[in-house]
Parts: sequence; structure tokens; C-alpha cells
Amino acid sequence: MATLQDITVSAAINLLSAFAFLVAFAILRLQPINDRVFFPKWYRKGIRSSPTRSGAFVSKFFNLDWRTYIKFLNWMPAALRMPEPELIDHAGLDSVVYIRIYLLGLKITVPLAVLAFSVLVPVNWTGGTLEHIRNLTFSDIDKLSISNIPDGSKRLWAHITMSYVFTPWTFYVLYTEYKAVAAMRLRFLASENRRPDQFTVLVRNVPPDPDESVSEHVEHFFCVNHPDHYLTHQVVYNANKLATLVAKKTSLQNWYTYYHNKYERTSKRPTKKTGFCGLLGSKVDAIDYYSSEIQKLSEAEAAEREKVINDPKAIVPAAFVSFKSRWAAAVCAQTQLCRNPTIWLTEWAPEPRDVYWNNLAIPYFELSVRRLLMAVALFFLIFFSMIPIAFVQSLANIEGIEKVLPFLKPIIEVKSFKSVIQGFLPGIVLKIFLIILPIILMTMSKVEGFSSLSSLDRRSAGKYHLFILVNVFLGSIITGTAFQQLKSFLDQPPTEIPKTIGVSIPMKATFFITYVMVDGWAGIAAEILRLVPLVIFHLKNTFLVKTEQDREQAMDPGCLDFATSEPRIQFYILLGLVYSAITPVLLPFIIIFFAFAYLVFRHQVINVYDQRYESGASFWPDVHRRLIIGLIISQLLLMGLLSTKKIDKSTIALLPLPILTIWFHRYCKGRFESAFVKFPLQDAMIKDTLEHATEPNLNLKTYLKDAYIHPVFKGTDFDRPQLICEEEDNPLVPTKRTSKQNSEAGSTSGS
Amino acid sequence: MATLQDITVSAAINLLSAFAFLVAFAILRLQPINDRVFFPKWYRKGIRSSPTRSGAFVSKFFNLDWRTYIKFLNWMPAALRMPEPELIDHAGLDSVVYIRIYLLGLKITVPLAVLAFSVLVPVNWTGGTLEHIRNLTFSDIDKLSISNIPDGSKRLWAHITMSYVFTPWTFYVLYTEYKAVAAMRLRFLASENRRPDQFTVLVRNVPPDPDESVSEHVEHFFCVNHPDHYLTHQVVYNANKLATLVAKKTSLQNWYTYYHNKYERTSKRPTKKTGFCGLLGSKVDAIDYYSSEIQKLSEAEAAEREKVINDPKAIVPAAFVSFKSRWAAAVCAQTQLCRNPTIWLTEWAPEPRDVYWNNLAIPYFELSVRRLLMAVALFFLIFFSMIPIAFVQSLANIEGIEKVLPFLKPIIEVKSFKSVIQGFLPGIVLKIFLIILPIILMTMSKVEGFSSLSSLDRRSAGKYHLFILVNVFLGSIITGTAFQQLKSFLDQPPTEIPKTIGVSIPMKATFFITYVMVDGWAGIAAEILRLVPLVIFHLKNTFLVKTEQDREQAMDPGCLDFATSEPRIQFYILLGLVYSAITPVLLPFIIIFFAFAYLVFRHQVINVYDQRYESGASFWPDVHRRLIIGLIISQLLLMGLLSTKKIDKSTIALLPLPILTIWFHRYCKGRFESAFVKFPLQDAMIKDTLEHATEPNLNLKTYLKDAYIHPVFKGTDFDRPQLICEEEDNPLVPTKRTSKQNSEAGSTSGS
Repeated sequence: MATLQDITVSAAINLLSAFAFLVAFAILRLQPINDRVFFPKWYRKGIRSSPTRSGAFVSKFFNLDWRTYIKFLNWMPAALRMPEPELIDHAGLDSVVYIRIYLLGLKITVPLAVLAFSVLVPVNWTGGTLEHIRNLTFSDIDKLSISNIPDGSKRLWAHITMSYVFTPWTFYVLYTEYKAVAAMRLRFLASENRRPDQFTVLVRNVPPDPDESVSEHVEHFFCVNHPDHYLTHQVVYNANKLATLVAKKTSLQNWYTYYHNKYERTSKRPTKKTGFCGLLGSKVDAIDYYSSEIQKLSEAEAAEREKVINDPKAIVPAAFVSFKSRWAAAVCAQTQLCRNPTIWLTEWAPEPRDVYWNNLAIPYFELSVRRLLMAVALFFLIFFSMIPIAFVQSLANIEGIEKVLPFLKPIIEVKSFKSVIQGFLPGIVLKIFLIILPIILMTMSKVEGFSSLSSLDRRSAGKYHLFILVNVFLGSIITGTAFQQLKSFLDQPPTEIPKTIGVSIPMKATFFITYVMVDGWAGIAAEILRLVPLVIFHLKNTFLVKTEQDREQAMDPGCLDFATSEPRIQFYILLGLVYSAITPVLLPFIIIFFAFAYLVFRHQVINVYDQRYESGASFWPDVHRRLIIGLIISQLLLMGLLSTKKIDKSTIALLPLPILTIWFHRYCKGRFESAFVKFPLQDAMIKDTLEHATEPNLNLKTYLKDAYIHPVFKGTDFDRPQLICEEEDNPLVPTKRTSKQNSEAGSTSGS
Repeated sequence: MATLQDITVSAAINLLSAFAFLVAFAILRLQPINDRVFFPKWYRKGIRSSPTRSGAFVSKFFNLDWRTYIKFLNWMPAALRMPEPELIDHAGLDSVVYIRIYLLGLKITVPLAVLAFSVLVPVNWTGGTLEHIRNLTFSDIDKLSISNIPDGSKRLWAHITMSYVFTPWTFYVLYTEYKAVAAMRLRFLASENRRPDQFTVLVRNVPPDPDESVSEHVEHFFCVNHPDHYLTHQVVYNANKLATLVAKKTSLQNWYTYYHNKYERTSKRPTKKTGFCGLLGSKVDAIDYYSSEIQKLSEAEAAEREKVINDPKAIVPAAFVSFKSRWAAAVCAQTQLCRNPTIWLTEWAPEPRDVYWNNLAIPYFELSVRRLLMAVALFFLIFFSMIPIAFVQSLANIEGIEKVLPFLKPIIEVKSFKSVIQGFLPGIVLKIFLIILPIILMTMSKVEGFSSLSSLDRRSAGKYHLFILVNVFLGSIITGTAFQQLKSFLDQPPTEIPKTIGVSIPMKATFFITYVMVDGWAGIAAEILRLVPLVIFHLKNTFLVKTEQDREQAMDPGCLDFATSEPRIQFYILLGLVYSAITPVLLPFIIIFFAFAYLVFRHQVINVYDQRYESGASFWPDVHRRLIIGLIISQLLLMGLLSTKKIDKSTIALLPLPILTIWFHRYCKGRFESAFVKFPLQDAMIKDTLEHATEPNLNLKTYLKDAYIHPVFKGTDFDRPQLICEEEDNPLVPTKRTSKQNSEAGSTSGS
């Protein structure tokens, strides 16, 4: 068990390394050559352009002005300066609400820490159990924790009382935050410009019809059932193969550019081998090879494009149906259309960027089976994943490698090398698993058949949260694999489980303090440094970039990785809630994490990230629910711990807390959740009326015409089937809009 | 433990007593004097009228035709003769679907019984464990059960295999039944005549407005947000006090009639005492007293009526809003209107008879708190109710009574009387509790704030089902009060619970066989005899009835008591599922129960019951869910039992069953449930179009005018506030309809 001094040293080391990261960041970001790595968002917005400052050639790449280095931390106040409404305009609601989660962590933990340090720490410190026990090693941290209080002491009522302060405080913070986010979402949706998804509903599981094509069937169905409101629709093509071809072509084009640039620099025709990874096969002229490959692929692509557009079988039984008003779209998205609730399924269309095209055509029964299989798979992933990893780890030792790759034997047998392998390989195997875990989870969510990127992210986050809860939180407290835990939990009474875990909680405080510093602090510092995008950008910049436009494409601003970051925040909040009444010393470390992360992510959101989609903070109900789960876990563990402390009626005294928490969750759900899943008719009507008054001549049909075509068709002009009630049901006077105006409207609405 | 012979004797006795009930029923129902008790439905429908057969005076009251007595069981085929569509017409969908639950029980249990008797019973019978054990008492029934198979025998795989046949069979039956009921419901709703609730939506939590009355506010809100579809609305008056006055007046009128009839018979002015229960106080002339009381009450009623209509505060913030088409009503009921999801709440209006008027004005927060309180109360009722009952039982002994009511001492001290009290009183206390339990549960549901009688019934049924599960099913298997069980469950590992219960299951088979006969068979036989309504009718007929219309009112046809009967059926199905793989001998008793109950209830539905409301079988999702719960319980218990039988991997072999069951439930929920909570727009549109074509001149506004007024206002003509957009938004050409036609339309639509 670490002493207070150990922790102080560890904290100092971690603070120093975080500081080193910050200094590195401060220096790197000031170099003009890195400008596009650290400020890509401004480039994307067209506000910032490559530095063209006159002066020495070297100053184009390196910042020689020493004065700017003095103020190397001035990005911090700068990050805080932009007010929230402007930030929503600048980065979208998703990002703003995401960084509010860190703020929420602060709002919850800071008052908890203040109260805990002023009440519980003195109570614990003077408890004096540990001083009497001589044969046990204990640290100063344990003296500040509940462990220092003798069993059955009346002092424990202080902890029970405080948990009755902590819980309402958390309720208050959660309630106001949910309310604020719901209001922000509604205001955001109301203030938004015209967007195609406001008028559009995604219709899935269109039943097959022997006499009509999917397009005609959709048209007829909506002409009958929404006669006054139906405007137009867009069928969905199964363009997955085409998309693969296009992606392959882009990759080939990159190689072509690379070799072409090489040729221009060296004036020597570069060659390459055609076989596996350019290592085997016959040598050919690289430029000729790639240009002919591109040529072939272009032809294949054109043929496939032709096929997709003309083959009725390439149309999947789904469509984007647009209405004449937001009111009608809101109505259609919220109501059931057909007797059979598994066909003609309607839901709000995700915004065009957010559509996950591959999943639009899954029948109801298949979807249901997929979800079952993925639930079972998730169970096995969470509870059994450690078993194959341990197996691979056991293989990944010296003997295993020597057997599989005998030619490496002489290298491995070098002594110093051997010990490194033996020491690191198992850790590396685990690390690799943890890196590919989010990819596995995302794949599972894709198999589950969700139809928008935002919902895929949300589902993956849910899975990752479960994984962290079981394998990181419980796994750190109780030894053994998750499956062994599960087995031991099933074999002991349910009242014993909180006790078993609760008892270990205070002993693990130092471990979690170290974890917060290493995983939290260092992780955030690494986040701001953007080492991987930095390297990739410079590689691309050196080998591929020729024009300004190429450089534009070489930037990889990245985006907030909701699916992995959010569950981590939840984990830290859970730690804060659990330890607030048990070992409050942990809280300052978490507070530093939240404050630092808030700063860093605010900076990143302002300067770097470019979101792939905008869902209007529709993830908030999930965030809220997981916080409630954390709160209930903390209450149950406190109950378990106190019941082992032999204090009378502690369980009954604490029992109302989880019940109240569940009720609070249900109340909030009823009160706010619908803001995230439905769109009130009142708001739709207000926006419709306003638009009708300000733009009476708007031709909505033209506006919506190509909003929902598959991205591979973007920019091409393809023949669309003639609409049936073209002339009769369009009461709007079409105005002449140039295509430039149209595309402008599209880009505004898409931002 | 009962032997097979004991069971046979008990079965014979119970069969005989059921037969006696049937004979009594057969005789009583043939007496013309009882005609209105046993065939009230036909009277209500106006098809049957009092027997006016000419002939001897006595034959007006007693059936002297001996030939009819020979065919005394011919009601049974008669009950089966009416085809289902006609029965739906005759009795409504609720009743028809309700009796299908008994049929469902048969469909599940009969094949289970056939399979179990052909496979499991031989396997069990030849197991031969019990024959080797000499020092244990065992019965022949146990020889047929799984107890007869030695631990670890391979024969147990027969049971596992059979459970893999039973579960898919249950799935199949449940799936087809859910599908059939959903189709019946949709067909019923589509074939129905025009009804006010098809056009109407109940709007609750209308926010207060400083400038407008509730009525104006509703009108303006819907004129803005549903401009093309809003037709009219009806505010809700808080007429609870008025309803109490009216009920009181009816009761006084009954007494008045009673004394008046007495006076006419005896020609002597009857007197009564004005004090407590007519026992104390001064003596007055009864007729004068009641006529003056009625006079007073009539005045009070008129004043209250005036006050309710004119006082704006008597209008509660809820309204019934009607639309021009079913389509628009379906849209409004399924969508969210306002940003704040706790105000302007819309839901389908229950049909006028089904409205529970007292609960229409509860704010969202209060509703949420009420539900929390009732959930806690239900927990205490289920787990602690036995404690006060035991306490009362301990008081309800000789000494307790002597202390409280000393004047009874001489009577009680008589020896024979004493033993009766000591033997019966505790049982009677329990019985009284069980009789008032449904009333308690219904009161709790009312407090929870549901707004229709049908939902109140459904909620009460859910609570009763939980009570039966815990206190009857588990309570019979494991000794001790429910709270002791709960405590012991919390103190043992979750894997041990199915074992603990599972082990006791085979031993309780004889108890449940007796239970099925006494509670099931006898209960059904008593149901058909209708002893209580018979007595009450004859009392009323003797003392109160003067005119044919009075006699009409004296009939109490009653209705299906869904809230208590349905959980009982669930209990029997649960028994069937649990014992099908363990002690199949139980199954025939349950099959007899279902077959008999099906016959009896079909007869009652045809001839007796007059439903208070018609919900279109909206209770089916609950029925389905509880059956699934029963199925899962049976699977878990089999798992527990087999794991004590020391057979390898039995738990893993059975584990897929509950997982599949949960998945099946979710699948069915997604597939069918929406038919019970939503109304597809397609159907609404078809019906609208049809109506528009056949009755273009229908004046819907007149039709809906008084549909949703509080029952105490029915028949009176009260001033209604002038509607605002009266003239401008009514495109329908009003036709002259006499009030008679209107009331006819009302009564058709209400049937």
C-alpha cells in the first residue's frame, strides 16, 4: 500500500510529464509548419490560410520570435474566452455539450470534495483505529479514509448523513444540467437554418410489391396516407460495391501522386513490384502501372455506377420521404403508418452526413436476431475476453516465438533483448486488445443494424461503458478475470456482493489515484499534443502534397471520439462518487483531471476537431442514465461497506437513496427525454409559419432534390425516375435559382 | 403427503360438489322468476322481456315443465354454439378475447400433457429411486414425478429435451395468439361504427394562462397547431361533489320507494328513526322524512350544478379535443405537442363510458410522486401484509374479543361456540383480507392517477399478479411469510434461489392439485350459480320494484372482473408450465379447470355480463408479458431442480431457454404491441375516406357535441361557452338531425 509520500512523488512525476507534454505542445504549435495540425478547424472554415508572412525562408517553417514563447500557456485563457453561443455556432452543439460533461464532473465533485474535506476527513483522521493496530501496514492515506474508523463507531453516521447531502446535490446538478441541455437542444433545432432532415423522414422496410417498383410504391403510399403534405422522396441505392471501388481508386491515386512527385524530384522513373505489399513480383514502371490501374478502375466504376442506377434490384426497400412542412415531417416521424408495425417504419431522417448507408435495408426479423446475437457476443466479450488474451500472452513468450519464427532465434537469445520481450510482450498484447476493442465494439454496433453514425457511436459507448465497469472498475477492485467474478457473484448472496466489493474499496484508493494520474492526466496531455496526426501530416505533406488543395486534404482534424471518451469520463465520475464518502483524498486528483480535460477539449473543439455529423446532443439521455448508474453503484457499495462496519440499521438508513435515485431517473426521463427523441409540433409549426412568411416563394422540391443521395453519387448527375404527381401537388411557385445559390443553401444547411 | 388414493377421493368430492352446483344452476335458471338473474344481457339488449306466458299463476314464477329439466346440461353446447364474430358483436371484443385466455391455457397445456404423459411419465415411473428408499413416506404421485429418478441419471436428459419441446410449443401458441388478437383488435376497430373516441384526444395538463380560460386556451392552441384539422373540444368539469350528491339522492330515493311500497302493501304509514343506521334518534314518518330529504338534496344538487357550470375554477386543466377526421386524431394522439413534455399531454381518449373522471387533473410532478409512493406501498403490501394479519389473528381469539366486547362473554364461553371461534376466526380474518385485497389494489391504482377504467383494471391486475406470485405461489412452496422469504433470498446466492425453490416443487404437487380443485373448480362452479346477485335481485324485486323499469334497474348483470380473474388464470398456466416437466400428473386437473372455465365464462359472456367499457382487448400485451414471466419462472425452477440432481452441464444446457424467451418477448413486443397502443394512420385514412364517400353530409360537430360530458350532466341541457371559430372552420354542410336520431347514433356507437 502506497504511503502519502509515494503518492506525492507519483503525482509530481505525472505533473512534470504532463507539463513536459504541454511545453512540447506550446513549442510545436507555434511553428508555422505545424499550423495545419494544431488549427485545422480554422483552415476548414476558410478563416485561416497557410502562413505567407514575408521574411526569411526559415521563418515560414519555424517561429523565431522568442517573445511568443514566453506566453506559451496563453492558449488556456484563450480556450475559455469564446462564449458558449458563439462556440455552438463555431463547433456545433454536440461538441459544446460534450465538453459540458467535464464541467458537469467538476460541478458534482468540487462541492463533494469541499464538504468531504471539511467534514469527513477530520472525522476519519481522528478515528484512530489504524494507530492501534501495529502489525498491519497502513499508509497516511488510509488514515484519511473510512478505514480509520473503528467498527460500530457512531462516527459512521457522519458518512451516512453526508451521503444524504451528496445524493441530493448530484440530483440537483443532474436535473439542472438535463434541463439546460434539453433547452439548448430545442433552441439549437429552432434556430437552425433550413436543413433537409427537418423535412424528411426515413422510411424503412418498404414491403415488396409485385406490380410496382419501390419508388412507385412509396410514392403511392404517401400520396394516399399523407395526401396534403407529401412532397417528394428519394430512393436508396445499394452502392456499397461502388463505394468500395471509389475508395480503392482514391488510394491508387495517392500512390500515383507519390511516385509522380518522386519522379519530379529525382527525374528518375520510379519502379515498383506488383506482388504482395510491393515486395514480390516483377518490377514495373510505377507511374505507368498506377495510371493504367486507375484507368481500369475508372472503367469498372463507371460500369458499376451505370448498373446501380439502372438495375431495379439495386434499390433497397428504404426511402427518404420529404414533406411540404416540418409539421408534416414531425407528424410522420412520430406516428405509425401501417397495421403491421414491422413494415413502413418511419423515423426522423438523420442529417445526410450522418446516414450509415449500409444498414438501411435490414428486415425486422433479421434485425431482431442480430440484436440477440450481438447481446450474447457482448456478454462473452466482456466476461471471457481475458481468457483468449491470457492464452495469447502465454504464447507470446520466447519459446512460442522461437517455435513459430525459428529464424529470429539468434536475435531473441540476446539476453537483454530476451528480458525486454518477456517483460513487455504480455503488456503489449493487452494494449493491442484495448486499442482494437473500440473497433470491435463499433463493428458489433454496425452488425446490430443502426442507421446513423450518431446512433452507432452511442451504442458503442454503451458497450464500452459496460466493459469498463466490469473489467476496469470491478476488475481492479476484485482480483481474477471478469468471468471468475461473475461466478463468485452468482455463488454468493446478493446482499454479500456490495459487502465484498465495498470492503475492498478503501484499499484500492491509492491504485485509483495512480490510475487517474497515468491514464487521465497523461492521456489528456497526449490528446492536446496530437502526435499521430502531426507525424501523418508531415509524411503526407512531404510525399503527396502538390497543390494547396492537396494540403487541405492532408489535414486530419479528427473529431471527438464519443464512443470511447464518454465512458471514460463516466468512469472518473463513478470514482468520484464512490470515493467521496469513503476516501475523499481521491477527489482532488479527479478534479484536476476534469479541469485540465475541460481546458484541453475546449481548446481542441475550438481549434482542431471537425465533427463528422451533428446530432444536436442526442446522446445526453445516455450520459444521464450512466451517471445515475454510477450514483446507484456508489450508494450500494457504501451500503455494503457500512454493513461490514457493524453499524446498526445502516442498510435501512441508506436504502431510500437508491430508490429515490431510480425514481429521480424516471422523473427526469419523463420530463426531458422526449426533447431528444421527438420534435414538438408546436416548434415545427412556428418555424413553418415563419418560413412561409419570410420566403413565400421557396421551391422546397428543388431544395430537397439531391439532399439524400449516396455520397458516391455526389457531384454526378444521374437520371432519376420521373415523379408521378409532379405537376398536380406542388402548390409552391417555383422560382429560378441558379445552381450556385442552391449549393450555397446546401452548405449552409449542412454546417 | 397425499397418496394417489387421497387425491382420487378429493377429486371425486370436488367433482361432485361442482356437479351439485351445476344441478342447482340448471334448476334455478329454468325458473322464470330467476330469468333476469341468469339472462340479464338479453334483457339489456331488449331482446328478451319478462315472461308473460299465459297459464297458471304459479308458472309465472316456477317452471313446471318437467321435460326441460331432463336437458339440464344443454347450456353447455349452447354456450359453444355462437360463432366468434357473432359473439364479438354480441358481447364486445374484451369479453371474447378474455375467454380466449382460457382457450390459450388449453392450447398450451393439452399438448404438454400429451407429450409429458407419453414420454416423461414412463421415464419417471421406471426410475425406481423411491422404491429403494424404505424409511421415507412417498406417494404414488411422487413415483410419476421427477423425484423418482436417481441423482445423476441419464434419464434426466429426457426432461431437458422435453423442455426444449415445451418452450417452442409455448412460443408458437403465444405467437399465433398474439397475432390473432392483434388482427382481431385492428379488425374490430376498423369495423366499428362511428364512435366519439375515434375523433377525440384527451389533452391533459393544460398550462394555466392568466388571460384566457382553459376552454379558450385549448381552442387557441389547437387552432394554431392543428389548423386544418381541429374541430371542437369539451372541457372537463370537476363534478365529483355533484356526483356524490346524485349518488346520495339515488340511495334516498330507493329508501323512499321501499317505504312507499310498504305503505301501499300494509296501508300503515311506516316510521323510521333518524339517527345512526335507523337505530337511534327520534321516530318520524318515513315517507315524509325521505321526501323532504330528497327535496333538500335536489335543491343542493341544483345549486351545485349551477356552481359547477358557471364557476371557472370548476373547470379542470384537461379537455377532450375532437378533430375533423380519424387521421388527425390519430396524429394528435401519437405526437408530442409542446416543447415541455409535461404539459399539453395527449393520448387517445378512452370511450366515454371508460373515462375515470376523478383523475383527469393531476399535474405531472404529483403523478410521478404518487407512482413512487404506490410502488413502495405495493412492496410493503406484498411482503409485509401477512404481519398485521397475523397480529389481528392473534387478537381475534377468545380473550381478545372478551376484552373488547365484554357483553359477549356469556355467549362466547359456551364450549362448542368457543371451539368454532378458535378454529375459524383466524381463517376468516385471512379470508376477509383476501376479499378486500382487490379493493385495496384498485384504490392504489386510482391513487396512481390513471384516467380510464380499463387502465385501472389493467394496473390492478398487474399488482394482483405480483401478490399471487409471491404470496400464493412462492408462499405455498416455501414456508414462512413473504418477508422471511425475501430475507432468505437476499441472504443466499442467486444461483441457490432456483435450487431452493426447485427442490420443493415436486413435493408440493399434491397441494397444488388440491388447490386447483378447491379454488379453481369450485370457484368456477360458484361463478355460474351467481348466488349473491340472485339474492340481491330477489330482495330488490320484493321491496323496491314497482314498474318494469325498476325491475330493469334491479338486475345486476355484473361484468368480467379482469383485475382479479386474469392473474388467477396466469397462476394456473404458471402451475401447468412449472409442473409439465416435473410432475405431469398435475396437468389433467388444470386442463379440466380450463375447459370448464371456458364453457362457463362463454355462457356467462353470452347470457349475463354487461361490460362497463370496451377497450378493444387492450389488455393483451399484459397477458402476454405475464405468460412470458411464467415461462421464465418455470425454466429457472427446472434449472434449479436439475442442478440439485447432480447432472452434468444441465444448467448450461437449459440456459439458452430463458435467453430465447426474453428475446421472443422482445420480438413479439416489437411485432404486435403497437397494435394495442397506437392506431395506424393507414387504417384511419381508409375509414375516413369511406365515411366521406358514404356520408358526405355528416355534421360531425353536432354528433360529438355532448359525447364527453360528465355522466351527472347527461340528459340535462347546460349552457356551453360559445365556440370561437364556429363559423369559419366548419366545411361540413350541417344537416337537420332531430335529437332522437342523435341519441340513437349515440347509443349505437356506445354499444
